[in-house]
Amino acid sequence: MNRLDETHDTKRVSWVPGAEPGSDFPIQNLPIGIFSSDGEERRAGIAIGSHILDLAAAADLLDPTWARDFAQPVLNSWLSRGPADHRELRLRLSQLLSDPGRRDAVEPFLVPQVEARMHLPCLIGDYTDFYVGIHHATNVGRQFRPDNPLLPNYKYVPIGYHGRASSVRASGQPVVRPSGQRKPPEADAPEYGPSRRLDYELELGLWIGRGNDLGQPIPIGEAAGHIAGYCLLNDWSARDLQAWEYQPLGPFLAKNFLTSVSPWIVTAEALAPFRKAIPPRPDGDPQPLPYLKDAADTEAGAIGIQLEVTLSTERMRAEGVPPHVLSRGSADSAMYWSAAQIVTHHASNGCNLQPGDLIGTGTLSTADDYGLGSLLEISRGGKQPVTLATGETRCFLEDGDELSMRGWCEADGAVRIGLGECVGRVIG
Amino acid sequence: MNRLDETHDTKRVSWVPGAEPGSDFPIQNLPIGIFSSDGEERRAGIAIGSHILDLAAAADLLDPTWARDFAQPVLNSWLSRGPADHRELRLRLSQLLSDPGRRDAVEPFLVPQVEARMHLPCLIGDYTDFYVGIHHATNVGRQFRPDNPLLPNYKYVPIGYHGRASSVRASGQPVVRPSGQRKPPEADAPEYGPSRRLDYELELGLWIGRGNDLGQPIPIGEAAGHIAGYCLLNDWSARDLQAWEYQPLGPFLAKNFLTSVSPWIVTAEALAPFRKAIPPRPDGDPQPLPYLKDAADTEAGAIGIQLEVTLSTERMRAEGVPPHVLSRGSADSAMYWSAAQIVTHHASNGCNLQPGDLIGTGTLSTADDYGLGSLLEISRGGKQPVTLATGETRCFLEDGDELSMRGWCEADGAVRIGLGECVGRVIG
Repeated sequence: MNRLDETHDTKRVSWVPGAEPGSDFPIQNLPIGIFSSDGEERRAGIAIGSHILDLAAAADLLDPTWARDFAQPVLNSWLSRGPADHRELRLRLSQLLSDPGRRDAVEPFLVPQVEARMHLPCLIGDYTDFYVGIHHATNVGRQFRPDNPLLPNYKYVPIGYHGRASSVRASGQPVVRPSGQRKPPEADAPEYGPSRRLDYELELGLWIGRGNDLGQPIPIGEAAGHIAGYCLLNDWSARDLQAWEYQPLGPFLAKNFLTSVSPWIVTAEALAPFRKAIPPRPDGDPQPLPYLKDAADTEAGAIGIQLEVTLSTERMRAEGVPPHVLSRGSADSAMYWSAAQIVTHHASNGCNLQPGDLIGTGTLSTADDYGLGSLLEISRGGKQPVTLATGETRCFLEDGDELSMRGWCEADGAVRIGLGECVGRVIG
Repeated sequence: MNRLDETHDTKRVSWVPGAEPGSDFPIQNLPIGIFSSDGEERRAGIAIGSHILDLAAAADLLDPTWARDFAQPVLNSWLSRGPADHRELRLRLSQLLSDPGRRDAVEPFLVPQVEARMHLPCLIGDYTDFYVGIHHATNVGRQFRPDNPLLPNYKYVPIGYHGRASSVRASGQPVVRPSGQRKPPEADAPEYGPSRRLDYELELGLWIGRGNDLGQPIPIGEAAGHIAGYCLLNDWSARDLQAWEYQPLGPFLAKNFLTSVSPWIVTAEALAPFRKAIPPRPDGDPQPLPYLKDAADTEAGAIGIQLEVTLSTERMRAEGVPPHVLSRGSADSAMYWSAAQIVTHHASNGCNLQPGDLIGTGTLSTADDYGLGSLLEISRGGKQPVTLATGETRCFLEDGDELSMRGWCEADGAVRIGLGECVGRVIG
């Protein structure tokens, strides 16, 4: 995959404030995103410490031929350049932001993150959501089919479906409680009204870099070269709408009212030190079909990303009670299929992926109860409410609730990096 | 809906060759699309007879303030202008192209259709496919559940799901036979290979004009104002991939390798004379929930579009055998939900539609056997092959097969108009 180089050197530090080891954005991270500040146009930036380096303004310090891509309001054209340019940008940034001698030249192009507004990093041509979190699939399947939670295709097919691109938003977007048809089992007919079972789903998002032509599958050995980076993704879900509408064509209005993503694209290069072997398939499970099998992917296809979800209610915030931790877990143990397998499967029929496409992994729950990725699982389908420090209880999200996801990577011999956060507050 | 005006006058004729009554594109039609010719840039045009009026070049004869929209390679900005401008364009074109005195001024901007190449009319932000063809849903459901073909939600929910926007193409795009996982019932495990059950689905496409903001549903009484026009749509389907992959999240790779549309957007205004009352719900069926109910839609929500599908094999073409008619039927008797109900339902949870979005109706089959919209239905799931004049038989599509869809409208007191055609040839 991505070899380690000087940009991963644990001794390298940046002179930019807030970039100390332990932060989300040390010099070993350097995620790219789209920001605006002072009423100026949207443009590309890199997170470093508590600041953003304005890439559009600083292009001359890096490579002037990149300036046009960086000045655009979305990163699609930059992502389409592929891994070689992305690695080169990372190398030059790593040198620039660690060299005290360049501080005077660079400082004018740094914007404090607190003064900036983050936007969706890409114009998303298509958003696809997968279902590779096997513990989530098992937990949800068990609620419908106690004896047979996983369907026969699950261990052969990386299950996925198309989601809504128009309603993907960057972290911070308010969550307008959706209305829709809901029919409790005991009712004769459905009625239309606000969802009473509003939920979140903890996922990782993959941003596609280079695309493929229609009719041209992506071999598994080349899949990694099509993934530009990763983010956190919240697949907001209305469980009552979902239960009634989803047969036979899958979820639709239960999901497409909003999907939130953390705004920074943490690159495949930054994640290289945290790659690890995919856990072997459990005894009795089939091996992946040949088109999904690749030794390099098996050896380094999992990524050690730690995930945490917290909830704060209006009352908790008013009373100064800290957010309640709903889950803590690791992405790599949750994913039955790797990112490369997801990409290769998606294009295996000739479907064309495009730069800036977003792919969700599906909800990532751990095998134990500490890292469940949705309230549907935590509350056992709404039967076991969570009790908060205020005495309030929750089976699903109430108006005023704020949900926050965070992700980070830690490994021996590497500097911790963070994915930032993905936040949304429910409004009625 | 759209009132009839002078543009629908049956006595009005155009001086442009090929625009005679009986053709697809008389002056009562005036569909809009994107074309290129002579290696020039893509731009907007109007079909009239056997020609295309180059709107970008002719804007000064219509309204110079429209020139920028017409010069773009997609119609999104034009569609976003909404019904008032669309009606005004239609009125001015109708006058311009029927006035022999303007012939000298207009003729330089006419391009013969045979010299032009048609393109996808819009940059499609999202493509959604519905399932409102009740006879198709019943036919397909019966193959899986003989006693209970329609699921309990069908008569309450206009069922839909998100499709792939990146692989929608204009008529003429070759159909590369997709590969994927397929598992015959008798096999122990799936294998990956070319689809053996390649099929088509006959649908209508709706092009969205004005959009709605995220979180803002579209009331049923306003839905018609968001529909810019219609086209033919072929939802190419790989039945073997579909059967294995579609549970629990719906069709994915079985569909997203290609979707073809006829290139002309036949406007809601052109279709006004062919609107008619929605047939009453059969006895025992529930009435639509209030948010899907509107007297005006009930009175004029169906559109009398006639549909025909033909097939020609390589051998038929070599031997000069005319195409085989697979089906003939009418769209209005096939749709359980109207276009307005589709749009309102789609946005009923706050999902934002955008100008240029494409919505498929789902396969439109008639109640009888003469207008079945897919080979899956015609061949009874692959059990009853169609015999062609050459003696060849077909359960599903073979390499070299060419599939053509045509649509047109006829009604007393109106001039016939056509939707053009949607063609695709399968290559191995």
